[in-house]
Amino acid sequence: MRLNIAVLPGDGIGPEVTNQAIKALKAIAMEFDHTFTFTYAPVGAIAIDQTGNPLPEETLDVCETTDAILFGAIGDPKYDNDPSAKVRPEQGLLRLRKSLGLYANIRPVKAYDTLIDKSPLKKHIIKGTDISIYRELTGGIYFGKKHLSDDGNVASDLCEYSREEIERIAHLAFKAAQSRKHKVTLVDKANVLESSRLWRKVVTEVATNYKDVELDFLFVDNAAMQMILNPKQFDVILTENMFGDIISDEASVIGGSIGLLASASVGDKYAMFEPIHGSFPQAKGKGIANPIASILSAAMLLDHFNLHTEANLIRIAVEKSLKLHITTQDINTKHDNVTTEKVGDFIEDYILHPN
Amino acid sequence: MRLNIAVLPGDGIGPEVTNQAIKALKAIAMEFDHTFTFTYAPVGAIAIDQTGNPLPEETLDVCETTDAILFGAIGDPKYDNDPSAKVRPEQGLLRLRKSLGLYANIRPVKAYDTLIDKSPLKKHIIKGTDISIYRELTGGIYFGKKHLSDDGNVASDLCEYSREEIERIAHLAFKAAQSRKHKVTLVDKANVLESSRLWRKVVTEVATNYKDVELDFLFVDNAAMQMILNPKQFDVILTENMFGDIISDEASVIGGSIGLLASASVGDKYAMFEPIHGSFPQAKGKGIANPIASILSAAMLLDHFNLHTEANLIRIAVEKSLKLHITTQDINTKHDNVTTEKVGDFIEDYILHPN
Ligand SMILES: [Mg+2]
Ligand SMILES: [Mg+2]
Repeated sequence: MRLNIAVLPGDGIGPEVTNQAIKALKAIAMEFDHTFTFTYAPVGAIAIDQTGNPLPEETLDVCETTDAILFGAIGDPKYDNDPSAKVRPEQGLLRLRKSLGLYANIRPVKAYDTLIDKSPLKKHIIKGTDISIYRELTGGIYFGKKHLSDDGNVASDLCEYSREEIERIAHLAFKAAQSRKHKVTLVDKANVLESSRLWRKVVTEVATNYKDVELDFLFVDNAAMQMILNPKQFDVILTENMFGDIISDEASVIGGSIGLLASASVGDKYAMFEPIHGSFPQAKGKGIANPIASILSAAMLLDHFNLHTEANLIRIAVEKSLKLHITTQDINTKHDNVTTEKVGDFIEDYILHPN
Repeated sequence: MRLNIAVLPGDGIGPEVTNQAIKALKAIAMEFDHTFTFTYAPVGAIAIDQTGNPLPEETLDVCETTDAILFGAIGDPKYDNDPSAKVRPEQGLLRLRKSLGLYANIRPVKAYDTLIDKSPLKKHIIKGTDISIYRELTGGIYFGKKHLSDDGNVASDLCEYSREEIERIAHLAFKAAQSRKHKVTLVDKANVLESSRLWRKVVTEVATNYKDVELDFLFVDNAAMQMILNPKQFDVILTENMFGDIISDEASVIGGSIGLLASASVGDKYAMFEPIHGSFPQAKGKGIANPIASILSAAMLLDHFNLHTEANLIRIAVEKSLKLHITTQDINTKHDNVTTEKVGDFIEDYILHPN
């Protein structure tokens, strides 16, 4: 397969972790006889420094003319500490999602046996957890009409959803469940919210197209409890934007390391893949950044193009690195000197020479 | 002190656990020379059976003419399984909160050393946790304008807050922090929501009246993570209705037993105290219901009238019962035959004869 991949390394540790993901992709291309080409473009603080714009037109052009986007991380303390800054690195990401119509945010959460000791949850609860969260990303209360009264004493936000917005992500969630454990859990608050009742109605209708997938429902407050009490019960979680923000962040910590979590943001035309961690500027250039989340983002990219064998080989390489403690110090209980680069080297090598 | 207390035992295990709370209150009255009188009134399914109304006028009258309300639990499966039922037990509670203007829901979450093994969290994370959550209860998106388009394809809910709604509960939270660890954490989503920005502004203003209390802020998605990663960091959490629903339910499971958690719902004129657990109809009359949440609700009632010494004696009695394993089977690892009544007897006796 021929794939043109836009690479937006961004700020902080973004470039160094993205480099390891690209090494993995190049190894996959060699091993499976694919042709992957990489086109680099700036985004975030580095783009502001170069052009004054966190998402330069040329970067957007690159994204729109390639098959997929591999994204690093953005954010720089020099902007965080300046509340008067009108241009901010984070705007680059928000605009990118919006410009490309990336309406579904997909976040796998998996408990790796070798990392169970790092989980805040007890072993018998977390062991075996394997969830994929589908969060609607471009609608709901985060994008609804906002209002502040003239006297500044009454403020409001509107949570609005249309049938189309719900249908398109619901189809993605059900399709994903078909190649997983055949279960979708819709998280909503249908006992109180009109918008949640629409979600429940539309998702129930969409479900009739996927007879092999079981659909169940959970109120968001109960979901927040179940994620701690029994995360193994979940397969695919489908939910609206704000509930997805809360539940996916809650889920992100139960596995024990945020440095392992990848994500995809997909729309009808474009798809972007990125680690969920931030730019971690304090760690920049020190060789201590964990590249696994970025490498697993590359695996999600391959899955997106139905290159499942290839994606799985990356995942096997990652699990091997965890098992052998060839990991950065954030999750390494044996050695504290395994660098970002070394982890990337091991995974690249494993892909080229799986034994 | 003279206190007239309305007792609304409700359905399922409500009456039997409430009985134990009343025994504790009577013991306190005797020991400290107070006069507590109790006026019983029906609410919930039992009220529907008797009058057709889950909140009969006479019950509301009783609540409005007494000093405080001790509430049990409501709900009955015969209504849950009938989706066509127009009258539902739960309406009794919602109407009561609304009629009495109970705008602040207060939920303490405490990790008891003797129950730490039951927590889903690892010991070093949960040990020492002691949080009081102040959730706004009568505003926000649960009560905002709802809309469904004529074709049924677009639905919306409005989240609206006014300065007054925020101020009144903020004062309660800061006052509570003054007799605790002097810290209030406002949970919001001020980076995205206009209503959250109003919360942040108003709460920051209210904070200037409480110089001895530290105020900090946490986005709700981060709060959902921190509750698992490091719940000890919290003292008083203040938040709006929906965020409070999610975060307080999440917090309710980290301690290991929902059967211990009490709550208060207070307004400017009235105050109601109840366990957070439901009516648990399967357990009704079997003597297995844990009465501690109801007994601790009685302690919160005493605190509300500044009877702190009395409230603390109840809490000490409860901790003693936990330590001696004089607890119902849901949390008892040593004996499975300690009944609801026996736990109540022990606590009553301890109050009358603390050694
Ligand atoms: Mg988030
Ligand atoms: Mg709830």
